[in-house]
Order: sequence, then C-alpha cells, then structure tokens
Amino acid sequence: MPADNLPSLKLGDPFKIAMLLFPNLTQLDLTAPHEVFKRVRGVEVVTVWKNLHPVKSMTGLALLPEQTMAECQSADLLCVPGGPGHLDMMQDDETLAWIRQIAAGAKLVTSVCTGALVLGAAGLLRGYRATTHWGSIDALPLLGATAVQERVVWDRNRVTGGGVTAGIDFGLQIIARLWGDDAAEMAQLTMEYDPAPPFDSGSPRSARPELLARAETAMQGYRTKIMAAATAAAARFS
Amino acid sequence: MPADNLPSLKLGDPFKIAMLLFPNLTQLDLTAPHEVFKRVRGVEVVTVWKNLHPVKSMTGLALLPEQTMAECQSADLLCVPGGPGHLDMMQDDETLAWIRQIAAGAKLVTSVCTGALVLGAAGLLRGYRATTHWGSIDALPLLGATAVQERVVWDRNRVTGGGVTAGIDFGLQIIARLWGDDAAEMAQLTMEYDPAPPFDSGSPRSARPELLARAETAMQGYRTKIMAAATAAAARFS
Repeated sequence: MPADNLPSLKLGDPFKIAMLLFPNLTQLDLTAPHEVFKRVRGVEVVTVWKNLHPVKSMTGLALLPEQTMAECQSADLLCVPGGPGHLDMMQDDETLAWIRQIAAGAKLVTSVCTGALVLGAAGLLRGYRATTHWGSIDALPLLGATAVQERVVWDRNRVTGGGVTAGIDFGLQIIARLWGDDAAEMAQLTMEYDPAPPFDSGSPRSARPELLARAETAMQGYRTKIMAAATAAAARFS
Repeated sequence: MPADNLPSLKLGDPFKIAMLLFPNLTQLDLTAPHEVFKRVRGVEVVTVWKNLHPVKSMTGLALLPEQTMAECQSADLLCVPGGPGHLDMMQDDETLAWIRQIAAGAKLVTSVCTGALVLGAAGLLRGYRATTHWGSIDALPLLGATAVQERVVWDRNRVTGGGVTAGIDFGLQIIARLWGDDAAEMAQLTMEYDPAPPFDSGSPRSARPELLARAETAMQGYRTKIMAAATAAAARFS
C-alpha cells in the first residue's frame, strides 16, 4: 500500500478527517471507516454537509452532520462514502467544488464504495488506478480512471475502497500507513475485527453464478443511470 | 445456528426490528447490523430511545432515534448494541423495563458487543449461553450466563454477537436462519462482504501478546466498572 510523500504520524498528533455526509448515502460506507479512524488518538473526524439538518441514509437511518461545507475549509484526509445518492452528488456543482477544494489541500483523497464515482465526477481520479463497488466498476473508466477490482486501491495520494464493508479494511490500511502497523493492529483488536462470514458470497468472484446474475439483473436500471451520470460528468471536465 | 420455534419467513413478509439507541454507544455495533438487516425486503428497523433528540455515540457521531420507548411497544426482534454507555444502561430501570417488555413478545432477543451486558442486567441471559466483546466476557457469568468466546452465539431465542464488527456476521446468520441462505448470501454480495483484514489481530487468540497485554492494561479501569455494574445488576434480580 504505497503512497508518495505521506507523513509518518505519532499517536496524538492532530489530524482532521472530513467525511461527506449526503442524502441517500449507504450509511455503513461512512459509519464503518468513521469507527475505525476514531480508534486513533488525536484523530478528529467531522461529517460535512450543506447544512446541519439530519441527513437520511438509503435505509432511513438519519445521521447528524457536524460542519457545513462553508465551515469546513480544509482537512488532512477527505473521505467520500457511496450509496444511491451519489447519482445526485455526481452532478451537484456545490458539492463537487467543495470536494475539489478539500482535495487540493488534503494529504489523502479517499472514497468507499460508489463514493469513488463522486471523486471521479469531480475530476479527481483522472489518470489514477481506483476501485468502487463491484456493481459500478465499469463506470470508472468513463471518468478517466483505471478500474481495479481489489479490496482497497492506492495510487499516489488517492485511496479507494470497494463496496460497503470494504471501508473497514480501507480504514485499517490507512491507519497502518500513517500511524504504523501497531496502531492499526490495536484498532483491529479493539473492534474485534476477526471476520467469520457465514457464506463465501461477498464478491462476484465467489458468489454463486445464479445469485450474481440475479443481483446484476436487479441492478440493471440503476447501472444505466450510473453510466449516464458518469458520461455526463466527464463531458463537463475542463 | 439452531433456535427453537422460529418462523421461516418469505422476502416481503412484515418483520419489525427494534434497536436500542442509547447515549455513548459504539455506533458501529448498531449501524453494521442495521445495514445488514435492511438488505431484506419487508424488514422494518426502528431505532428507539427515551426521546427523539439526536443521540451521540462514543466517537461523537450522532444518530437520530425514530421512536420513543413509549411509541415502540413490541417488535419481532430486539437488538441491543454495546459501547461504554452500557454501564449506565445496566442500571437504568426505565430502559431495563422496556427491554424486558419488548423481549417478552419478541421472536429473537439479541445483542452485539457489550449490549449483552445490558440484556444480562435485564435478567434475560440467566441460564443462557452468550458472548460479548472479548474485553468484557468475564462479566457474563456474574449475570447468570454461560460465557462462550465465539463470534456469534445462539441459545434458544437469544442471539449474542462478539465485539463491534461481529455485528455483520451476526446479522447475516440471523437473515439466513429467518429468510434462508439465499437471502443472506444476497445481502453479503450487495454489501461486498469479502473481508481482507490487513493483519491477524482481531481477537485475543490472534493478536500479538504484547499488544493484547497493552489493550488489557488500558481497559483495566473500565473492566473494574463493568464487573461492579454486573454484580450490582445481579443483586437486583428478583
């Protein structure tokens, strides 16, 4: 997991992480890495949206943003989660401008799940290797990225995680790179991250072909929208 | 994963899950299984607290409860997450009474992480095998339970998960038992739950002994409080 010019931090060093909290997100894309990052002493994590009203996730669970975009002008690490609301975010000029601003000053520019498509729509993955949820990975090349179907992909200061639960592995890799293996191992131990999936069905590579086909059929309309949103976003690149 | 007298449900069947949302919880204990459960068509998940104000988790992230305890009088499944706030919950008569009421009518009575200690303080684990976060497992026998250090433990209609991230495996096991393997495998695929922990440090069994010793030392004061809270709760059993 290499990354150029990244600092080596000590536990307790100030480090600000800004997570975009947008309507209709997949809440676990945000809540899982939030929990991981907060296991490091000194780390501040702020959730950011246009206003401070509760933001409803795809499943109805509502989270409270802590800063507005106007209040959050910089961060050491930017993290954009995914979820169906990314379709709106990919064409939301205010959000894309904020993302570009924070990214310009951030040490790491990151995403979980389809958050990569929002980073991509902001033009931030052009020329980078990146990943996203397996169901949306075809959209990455439309945004100028090289799609890589791996759990977590590092390219210079861009770090992109796969679908939903990949945010845990993503968070631990980032802790290891910035604060060292010891800090990441401690976070893993206190979160008891000793996974025991009851089935081997977590990726297109392992799921039963019949099940995968059903999932793909169910996603077809949504995928069409994603490809259109990515094409439209790329057409706006300057 | 056996459980007595549980229904076999079809996708789309109404099924209500009530999750206790209390101050100073570990948000991932709640948000991970919430995300898993909501992958099943027909499932309603409501977060419940004494009032509808935002509830701040241990790490500062605030979630919004959807129903008050007065509004939520029954559920098919009760789930109690953990986190430091469980110390208060273990001696909170209003909460314990609500838990007992919901449990009495629920098909499954469940917890993630130290939520088991709250179920235990409500007297609901007496005579049951159960698990919790590895750092608190010694408290279970004080509450009349048989402690089992496994990822997810089933005993009749009680289902208890281990620490924090165990809530994912816990949720998938419950889906498999109630709606069948197919539904659980589909949830696993759409959440891309194909874990790739960067270290083998997720349990006392696998973590480096020096790291484990450090974690145990850091937890010592907290463990003393847990053992005292469990002893006090057991003294109130009628």
